[in-house]
Formats: sequence, C-alpha cells, structure tokens
Amino acid sequence: MLERMFDPNSVAVIGASRKEGKVGRAVLENLMQNSELTIVPINPGADEILGLPCYPSIMDVPDDKKVDLAVIVVPAKFVPQAIDECGQAGVGNVIVISAGFKEAGVEGARLERECISLCEQYGIDMIGPNCLGIIDTASGLNASFAANMAYEGNIAMMSQSGAICTVTLDWAERIGVGFSKFISLGNKATLSENDFLKMFEEDDTTAVIAAYLEGVKDGPEFIKIAQRVSRSKPIIIVKSGRTSVGSRAVSSHTGTLAGSDAAYNAGFKQAGVIRADSLEEMLDHSRAFSVCPLPEGRNIAIVTNAGGLGILTADACYNAGLSIASFEESTVERLREKLPPAANFYDPVDVLGDAGADLYAHALDAVLDDINVNGIIVLVSPQSMTDVPGIAETVAKKIQQSKKPILCNFAGGSRIAAGEDVLNSYGIPNYSSSERAVASMNALCNYFTIKKRKQEEPEKLNCDVKAARSFIDTASEGKRRTHGLESLDILKAYDIPVVDSRIAKTLPEAIKAADDMGYPVVMKILSPDISHKTDVGGIRLNLKHADDIERAYNSMMSDVRHYMPDATVTGVQLQKMVSGGKEVIIGMDRDPQFGPLLMFGLGGTYVEFLKDVSFAVAPISASEARHMVSSIKTYPLIAGVRGEASSDIDSIIQTLLKVSQLVTDFPEILEFEINPLMVMPEGQGCVAMDIRFTLDS
Amino acid sequence: MLERMFDPNSVAVIGASRKEGKVGRAVLENLMQNSELTIVPINPGADEILGLPCYPSIMDVPDDKKVDLAVIVVPAKFVPQAIDECGQAGVGNVIVISAGFKEAGVEGARLERECISLCEQYGIDMIGPNCLGIIDTASGLNASFAANMAYEGNIAMMSQSGAICTVTLDWAERIGVGFSKFISLGNKATLSENDFLKMFEEDDTTAVIAAYLEGVKDGPEFIKIAQRVSRSKPIIIVKSGRTSVGSRAVSSHTGTLAGSDAAYNAGFKQAGVIRADSLEEMLDHSRAFSVCPLPEGRNIAIVTNAGGLGILTADACYNAGLSIASFEESTVERLREKLPPAANFYDPVDVLGDAGADLYAHALDAVLDDINVNGIIVLVSPQSMTDVPGIAETVAKKIQQSKKPILCNFAGGSRIAAGEDVLNSYGIPNYSSSERAVASMNALCNYFTIKKRKQEEPEKLNCDVKAARSFIDTASEGKRRTHGLESLDILKAYDIPVVDSRIAKTLPEAIKAADDMGYPVVMKILSPDISHKTDVGGIRLNLKHADDIERAYNSMMSDVRHYMPDATVTGVQLQKMVSGGKEVIIGMDRDPQFGPLLMFGLGGTYVEFLKDVSFAVAPISASEARHMVSSIKTYPLIAGVRGEASSDIDSIIQTLLKVSQLVTDFPEILEFEINPLMVMPEGQGCVAMDIRFTLDS
Repeated sequence: MLERMFDPNSVAVIGASRKEGKVGRAVLENLMQNSELTIVPINPGADEILGLPCYPSIMDVPDDKKVDLAVIVVPAKFVPQAIDECGQAGVGNVIVISAGFKEAGVEGARLERECISLCEQYGIDMIGPNCLGIIDTASGLNASFAANMAYEGNIAMMSQSGAICTVTLDWAERIGVGFSKFISLGNKATLSENDFLKMFEEDDTTAVIAAYLEGVKDGPEFIKIAQRVSRSKPIIIVKSGRTSVGSRAVSSHTGTLAGSDAAYNAGFKQAGVIRADSLEEMLDHSRAFSVCPLPEGRNIAIVTNAGGLGILTADACYNAGLSIASFEESTVERLREKLPPAANFYDPVDVLGDAGADLYAHALDAVLDDINVNGIIVLVSPQSMTDVPGIAETVAKKIQQSKKPILCNFAGGSRIAAGEDVLNSYGIPNYSSSERAVASMNALCNYFTIKKRKQEEPEKLNCDVKAARSFIDTASEGKRRTHGLESLDILKAYDIPVVDSRIAKTLPEAIKAADDMGYPVVMKILSPDISHKTDVGGIRLNLKHADDIERAYNSMMSDVRHYMPDATVTGVQLQKMVSGGKEVIIGMDRDPQFGPLLMFGLGGTYVEFLKDVSFAVAPISASEARHMVSSIKTYPLIAGVRGEASSDIDSIIQTLLKVSQLVTDFPEILEFEINPLMVMPEGQGCVAMDIRFTLDS
Repeated sequence: MLERMFDPNSVAVIGASRKEGKVGRAVLENLMQNSELTIVPINPGADEILGLPCYPSIMDVPDDKKVDLAVIVVPAKFVPQAIDECGQAGVGNVIVISAGFKEAGVEGARLERECISLCEQYGIDMIGPNCLGIIDTASGLNASFAANMAYEGNIAMMSQSGAICTVTLDWAERIGVGFSKFISLGNKATLSENDFLKMFEEDDTTAVIAAYLEGVKDGPEFIKIAQRVSRSKPIIIVKSGRTSVGSRAVSSHTGTLAGSDAAYNAGFKQAGVIRADSLEEMLDHSRAFSVCPLPEGRNIAIVTNAGGLGILTADACYNAGLSIASFEESTVERLREKLPPAANFYDPVDVLGDAGADLYAHALDAVLDDINVNGIIVLVSPQSMTDVPGIAETVAKKIQQSKKPILCNFAGGSRIAAGEDVLNSYGIPNYSSSERAVASMNALCNYFTIKKRKQEEPEKLNCDVKAARSFIDTASEGKRRTHGLESLDILKAYDIPVVDSRIAKTLPEAIKAADDMGYPVVMKILSPDISHKTDVGGIRLNLKHADDIERAYNSMMSDVRHYMPDATVTGVQLQKMVSGGKEVIIGMDRDPQFGPLLMFGLGGTYVEFLKDVSFAVAPISASEARHMVSSIKTYPLIAGVRGEASSDIDSIIQTLLKVSQLVTDFPEILEFEINPLMVMPEGQGCVAMDIRFTLDS
C-alpha cells in the first residue's frame, strides 16, 4: 500500500485552491508538474481549479479516477471528516499537511487521536499531520507545498521538521544534490521513521538514508529495524534536543517526549546509525556516501598544493582518529619521478603551488595505487598559477573511476567558484573546509566497520524467572517502591553471585550469624528509611570476632538513632568481608523512548566527577556487553596496568548480560543498580555487595 | 621604520620582470595598482619594464627616488647580495619573496642566516623569506604576488603560509570581507608575529587581529605582548601542527620546531588569545568581531521562523556553554502582541513559517530591549511565503544599529542566495550553519571576559636563590643529570615545606634517624640508578619501631639486590609518615617555544588514564595558579565533597608559585616534579614527599 503513496496513479487534493499563496494551490501546482498523474481537486466551492474538474467531496469522485492518495490541506477541525470520507471512498493513503494537532495543545491532540482511530478503522496509511508533504523523484511525484522540487538522486531523506525539509531542498537545489525520496514526517501520528526505514531498505533508488529527528516513536523497534537496514545502507541522523535546553524547546515545538541523550547515543550506536552533530554534517555525510565507495581502513592520503592546508588537514585526521598513510617506497619513487624536487613525497603530498592538473593526476594515481592508502583528501588552493577548473575536471574524473573514496576541499572563494561548478556538474561535493571533508571521510570509515560487523542476537540466558517473579511480587506487596540490601537475593535467581550474607534482628542473632559465616565480616544497617548508610554510621567494616560484633552493633544503633531518630530499623545485615577486588557499578534506568538503559562504570568518587560510564539499551549481546566494559576511559584499571593482574572481565560481562535479561524480563523494574559489584582477579569471578531497585507502583 | 614598510613612497622590485607568469611581473603589476607610488624595477637586463625606468642594481637608483622598501624576488642564492646592496643604498625595509631558504635544507638555512646577519649589520627590517608579500589597504600598497587585492576593512591578518593567504584573500573577495593589513610572514627570519602584534596594536585601521601560525618564534615574548594587545583588540589564531602527525608535517614544511600543543594551549590562554580550531573558524570569528559589539554576558536569544532550527541552535548554545535567555514578562507580552498565537514567545522565539520582515523586526526589537538578553542569533529558513531579501534587509539594519551582537544563519541554498547578497552588501556575515554562528557568538562572549580581566603580574617571591644556586651547582658537578629524593632539600630554599627526612647509610644510622624523628616512618631506597622505587621493593610504609626498621632494611636490601643487582645503593631515606592528606603532583617540562610549562594534577592512577591535568607557562600569577588548581575535573575532590573538609588549596597555590619562580630562576632545570605533594586539610598546609628533576648538561 505504501508504494501507492509514493507512486500513485491518481491523487486528490482535499482543500484544493486556485488562490495564489494558498497551500491548497501550491500542492496542486507541484502535483501538476507530473503530466502523467491524474489530479483531482476537492473543494465544495468550485467546479474546476487550474483547468482540472473539481468535486465537492472525495466521495463524489467518479470510479475511473480511482484515487490512490489524498493530500489533505483543510483546517484541522475538518480533517477527521475528510479522513472518514477517504475511508468511505476506499482511499488507502493520506497525507495530512494541515497543522493544529498535537503540537497545538489539548484540542489538537484530541483531533489527532480521532484521525488515528479513523485511519485504524479504515486501514488507511497516513503521513503527518502538520507536515510539508512528500516527494518521489523516481515516480515524479511532488505531493508537497515545497517551493523547490528535488533533483533525482540516491539519498532518501526524512525530517520531523517541515522547515528543515525546506532548508535541505533549497540547499540541494543550489548545488545540484539529488534525492530518491523526500518525506516530511510531521507529527508521525501513524507512519513514523520505522516504517520508512523499512521502505528505504527495499527501495532500489535509495543508497543513503538521511534523517532529521526530534525523537523516535518506538525505540526498541527502531533499534531492531535500523540494525538490519544499516547492514545494507548507511543511516545518517541528526537528532535535535540533545541537551536539557534543547529538549525543552522540543516539547514546546512538537510535543514529542524527547528521550535522554545518553539513551539516543547508546541506541543509535547499537542500531548502527551514524549520528551527525548538525544539519550541515548530515548533508555533508550524505553526499559523501552518495558518491563514494567505502574505505577499507583508516589510512588517509592527503594531496595538496598548499603545505599549510596539508598540516591543518593532517591535524583534523589525527583528531578524528584517522591515520596519515605510510606510503610504499615505490609510491614515493613514483611521486618523485614527476613532481618538482621541492615537493613533499610523503603524506601529506605537497605538489607545490604552481602544480597543474597533470601533477594532481600523477599524484592521485600514485597514492590511489598504494595498498596502504584507504581514502584520499584532495586540497586545492587558488594560487597565481592554479588552473582551478582544470584541476577540478581531473579530480572529478578520478573520483568517478576510483574504487577508493576521494573527498575534496577546493579552498577559497572567487577563483574557487569555477572549480565548484565543475565538481557540481559531476555531482561531486566540494567541502568548504578540510575539516568537513575529514569528518565525512571519518563517517565513511566508521560505516565500513558498521557494515561488516557480525550479526549477533542477544543470547537468551537460562534464568529462574519464576523465582525472580515471586521475589518481585512479594516486594510489590508492601508500600515501598524502592528496595535495597534486604532484596539482594533476587540476584541469585539470575545466577549473579552475591556476597554471603545473613540478616539478624538482634545482637545475639548477629553474633550467631557471624560465627556461622566466619570472620572477618561487614555489618550494615537494615532500614527501609535509610538509603545512604555511610552518612548515618550504618556500615562497619572488618569485624574480626564476636566482641567486635557487639561493639559495632551497639554503637551503630546509637549512631543511627542519633542521626535518624524516626527511621524504622529492622535489624542488621552481616556480610562476609571481601577484599582484593575492584568495585564496579552496573545500573539501569528505564528511558521513555528506548526502555531499559544499562550503565556500567567503575566505583569510587573519581568516576562520579569524571562521568566515566558507558551505556547500552537492553537486551544486549555479549559483544555489546564487552564493548560497554572496554569503552570506559578507566578500562586499563580493570584490564590490569603496571604488572597488576587483570580483573575478571568475563564475569563482569556475564553479570551485565544477566542484568540485561532481568530488566528486560521485568518491565516493572524502573531503576536498578548493583553497587558495588566486587570484581576479583581474572578467573576468580565477581560478587554483588549491595543492590537498589525501584518498582513501578 | 616599520610604518614605511607599509606606507612607502618609493618601492623597488629587485628581480622585476616583464614576462607573464613571473612573480617579478605579478609584484610589479600589483604595486602599479597604486598610481601615487614611485615604483623602481631592478633588473640588469632591461632599461624599462612595463613603462617604468629600470636599473641594474638598487645602488644605481637616483636619490630623488629614495627607496623605502625593496621587494626581492631573485633566486635564493642572489638574495644575500641583494640585501647587501639594499644596505649600502640605505633601504631600510625589504620583503624577501624568494623561496629556497630554511625550508629547503642545509644550504638554504645557511643563506637565511647570511640574510639575517646582513639585516642586523645594516639595521634592515625584513619580512620573509619565502613569502607572498604584504598588502596595506589604507595606504593602497599591494607588495605581493597575490592574485586578489584585499578590500578595505578592519581585520589585520598575518599568515605563516603563503597559500593560506591566497585562500583567505580569495574567500574574502567572494563575500566582500575587508582587511586593514595582510601579511605573509614566510620563514620569519627577522620580523615575526611579535613585531606585527605590536604594530596592529597601534594601527588605528585595525580592530581585529587574525593569524595562521605554525609556531611562535619567541613564546615568552609572545605571551607578554599578546597579553597586552588582547586587552584592546581580539587576537584570533589558528595554530596548525596540533598533533604529533600534524607536527611532523610542519617540520617538513617550514622547518619550524613546533612546540607541544599543551604549551600552545596554555600560552595562548594566558596571552588572552582566542584559539580557532580551523581556518574557517578563524575567519568566522574575525568577521563576527569585525562587525559586532561585545556581549556583556552569555544569555542568548534565538529568533527563528523554523522550530527545528531553533532546537538545533539551542543545542549548540548549550554545548558551547551559552545560556538560552529567560525573558522578562514584558518581553513575552510584547511578542504576544504581534506574533500569531501559535508562535513561541519564549526563547527560542518562533515567529512561524509565514513570518515577514515586519514580524522579524518586531521580535528582534522585543528581545534586544530585554535586559536578560546579551546576544541574538537570527535564523531564517526559505519557506514558501518567506521574503528572504526583505528579511535580510531588516536584519542587516538592526545589526548596524544594535548595541548587542546579532549573528545570523540564513539556512538553505538557492532562495537564500538573495539574502546573502543583501547581508554581504552591508558587510554582515551569514553563517552557513547555526552551529558556526553559535561558535562565533561564544568567541565574542569569551573575549568579553578576556578584555575585562584584571591585569596581574607574576609576583616576585622572596626566595633564597643563593642557597638553591649552590645546591644546583653541587648537583651539576656529578655525572648524573637526574636528581631525586636525596635533593629534596632544594625545595627548602624556596620555602616549600618538605617532609622531615634523614639519610642513613647503614642500618644503625637508620635506626638512630628514626628514633630521632619519631615513629611511624617510611623508608625509601636511595640509589641514582633506581627511578621507580616501588617496582624493586624500594619503599616500606608505616614502620612503627626499631624492630620494624631492622626488618624492613634487611628485606629491602635483599629485594633491591634481587631486582637490580647492578644498582649502586647509597643508603636509605627515612621520612616521617604523613597521613590524612591528598596527593597532588606539581611538574614542569621545558617547552622549546614557551619555556617552563607547569603542570598540576591529582596523584593516583585514575588521573594518569584520564589525563586530568592543567598547564600554564611560568612565571605565573596567583590567579593563574588558582586557575590551574580549579580547572582540573577532579577539583571537587580537593575542594571537598560530601561533607569532606576542603584540602588546603592556598598552600597548593603557594607551592605552584614557588615552583614557578624556581624554574624561572634556573633555566638549567629541564624537568621538575614534586610527586607527591601531600596536601592537608584547609589551614594545615602541604608537604613535599618526593622530588625529581633533570639539569641541563
């Protein structure tokens, strides 16, 4: 059905108008650019519009004009009726351009829900409301009120902002960038990015997927789909509302509930999405993907006629994590053959200021043939002898033939313009700075890794779900939503080792428990009212015999009564003292968009200030868990430094996977934290020392 | 004299040529653009060139043509002779355009040194060699072979790369950016950035100073001059060779010995320089400074006709550390008066897609009048109703009248071009992305802070230089260049508290020393061959009585013999055990460009991996020392967190100042480190526990 949306035989415009400046006229005119299309204006007040016979309602359209798609531009309050009539008339696709829905307040939100129910009732696919429309260059459809039509191309673009569609189309028109499909998503009442990702995956005219999003509609589904699609086509997304300030603006703008940026970063990463930092970067990357083969490594050659630009570009490569290539000796010899003696024959290759197109061609051929070069950045400055268009012509031809990516920065203004024109005529981007070219080269390199990554499903672990269920049901019965140390044993159901511990309600019980377990032990206060035990003197370490227990018990009770006289104390917990390990934290926060967001980090105060933690959306695979552990900056401290033994990293990974499954199995767990998980040296496992989780009420 | 360089009455071109494509002709033609200038071609093979009488040598020029400036374009090997003749003829200024000097190898370097001596001998000011020349738009001088002449403007630009001059001039020509002076620095054999900073400071036509540098010639002098100049005019520098990869390219390019990037970051910061990350950013910032008043705070209002762009811009502001403004209620009311009800009246202000110039004007007036707004970003997307040039006209006029900075991003391509033309005609920049506009707004905000900062000289402390001198002289006598624990007492000369410690050569001496000092003590091995004491069992902590000393001494000697049988052991050092403090490190590394580069950081393994340290070039002032301490990320750990007492930060600052003075007083100290400096709780001072320094041989 969605194909008919983009390649209809007959399109109705509900709210068509002949009045200049009206959206109902702009849409009609855009549609009329395609002479093969049957176009049906709907307007009760006219017999014909722009020479087309007009009907009072979609239901009056004769059968031989069977409408595949209706574009609705009437005021919001009339839209539900229009959709209802579409349903009755058997129209399967609608685009609601009209604004005044969820983004406009309570009444708008009610109207939007009404539209959604009608679409469900009739099985209608709807884009919008509150959008600019769609363009399909292959079918020649322009069902939008955009002022610019898109050129044909292989980039599919979707945007949650109509204005950003406008900006992008205007930008593309100026420099000749083409699109396969162009979709203004609007409020995403029914169809969303997830549906279009699937469509783009199947679409032969699309090679690159670009999007501006303010949020995703269904995070887990998005990850699942994008993970698959990103194996065949690059997905480049600029996601706004990254920050708390930005997020506030989002909610006043489209009413989207923006997920936390950590969740987006994690979710996009797992999905294989290339996240662009700005609209400009999204467009830059899209163009690079649209014309370039993928680099098979991160070694970049720079060819320049200006040493200074070469250095700046080498700096940018280094900052992006790209390497400057080390050439084969034969490449250096080949460069030496034709370049002047003062040239630089090593990377960055400096062909010198008076180089013509022939020297650029020679240098490019030489570095392209070098097996140590995976991609090339060409820099051209307009020096007095420089034949800018000639060099552009040569470079453009090399780019078209090359099996390695070549990006260029013709740097300057007036005299560079002629070169840009030549490049544009070949459909080849000129980056306005070498830093931008390097950023897009880096995106190409990153995508090569994404594309070739192994497919790996989260493993389904064999856990005692029933035991955990009964634990959680019991915990849910009380009034408290947050549970701590006393619930440590829930971890046992998921086979996570917990420290040997006993609960004691009285001093004699405590002494007996410690005697049973063996010394030394740690004593912790048990109270539903106390969350920061240290602050009230509620933890005593290294108790070595019964006397220590007695002294510690009495002074702890007195301290706690002093600091929190109103706290209900249910007793103490005695734990076997664990030493020789490193403290780490495994946590989970349920994100509104993506669901369970796992966190990993080292324990201790440093980490708190340095925010050295990693995130992933559960359920995770083993390699995602391994990546979580290895991607924190303090990883060397667990992996072993200065001859220190490595910690048992495999046991951390296993624990992450078990927590991942636990929080996936039990959506009622809103927050969860093992803190600390004590990790012993390699081969000696880990053990959970304390826990804290919150259940949905 | 330097003024004559830029405003000469008579200019000679040594190596003038009539041949098309020759530099000697290009320079002549550029000079001839100024009809008031006396131009004297020098070429032994011609009587006249381009209608000007030509002389075989500068010495043959008649007295009435008294040459103020000679531009030399003859091959490198003839340049010394040409300078010699200039000297004899009394020419005070030369620009050597010719290449083939230091950048070309050993023979070139010799030629360059010859030129330098000749300039010194005759008192000649020289720009270059290996440069493009200079332009002065006020005097109308174009003494370069650049293909583009600069427009008049208030930006002074200097560049160590001739090609980057070319790129910048070409860029400026396209969009109409003007310059006061334009200088290609070349190899900086005599005149360097320091000389021109002083000149720009005095130059009334210059309001903004921009530079591309690959290194500075004299770091300490640069800091001194730039610190003063940056109080009156912004200095924006892009410094290449930031990274090791980039640095390698620098040395093959101009032979400049590039300083470490940490030193450049520290030096630029102390000097009040705004460091741009790319050429594009340097140009962006320069344009912003060239037209904008300074913002008096960091609260930014955004005015947009596209919600999505507004959010992206708010994100960019947040990331840059700028705030989105909170408007006065009266501003919101005023916006509400004229904007449509669906508009957003809070920051970012959304005037909606169909807004005309009048609504933009109204919104701009309202937010400009709000006392909570320090700067404004205007965003314009080309929607179907948008009058792009009309809005540009309105915005340009507001910018010209405004006392607050306004930067704009007209976003798009084809339909935006007309708006860009209007802005350019007013000399107002259009940023191609809102992120770039935000980055330049941030630079304006940062410069406001730089400009108003208090002037503070490094305090001269009262130290016992003589005692330190004799200590260092004694240390220099031996063969060793690196000195450790045994030299701890050098710190006493600079009034830095050191831990109470004694040296003992035998076990009985060790026991006596410990008894004298009082227990507990720490014992450390003393050996010129052992630098990592822990690795060989060379440290024992918490020795509580004579028995402990005996056991520790014997086992340490046996361990050390085991690990390093060949090490010369001179004895042990006994130190009073210090507890209850936090370990920090104060270090110094002598940078080739900037000299003594101080480092500060917390002790411990975390910091090593997280590289959480700060730098400053000595000598430092008290507020620079304070900034060093407070700018590390783990600062909260010293300042006191979670009810912990603050460490004695003043004592750290004092120690930093004393080390700063020590390494300034003794240039023969190449490396220096107090590690650890044990900092006690507030009011209880700090104490140096160990030291390590290397002396020049």
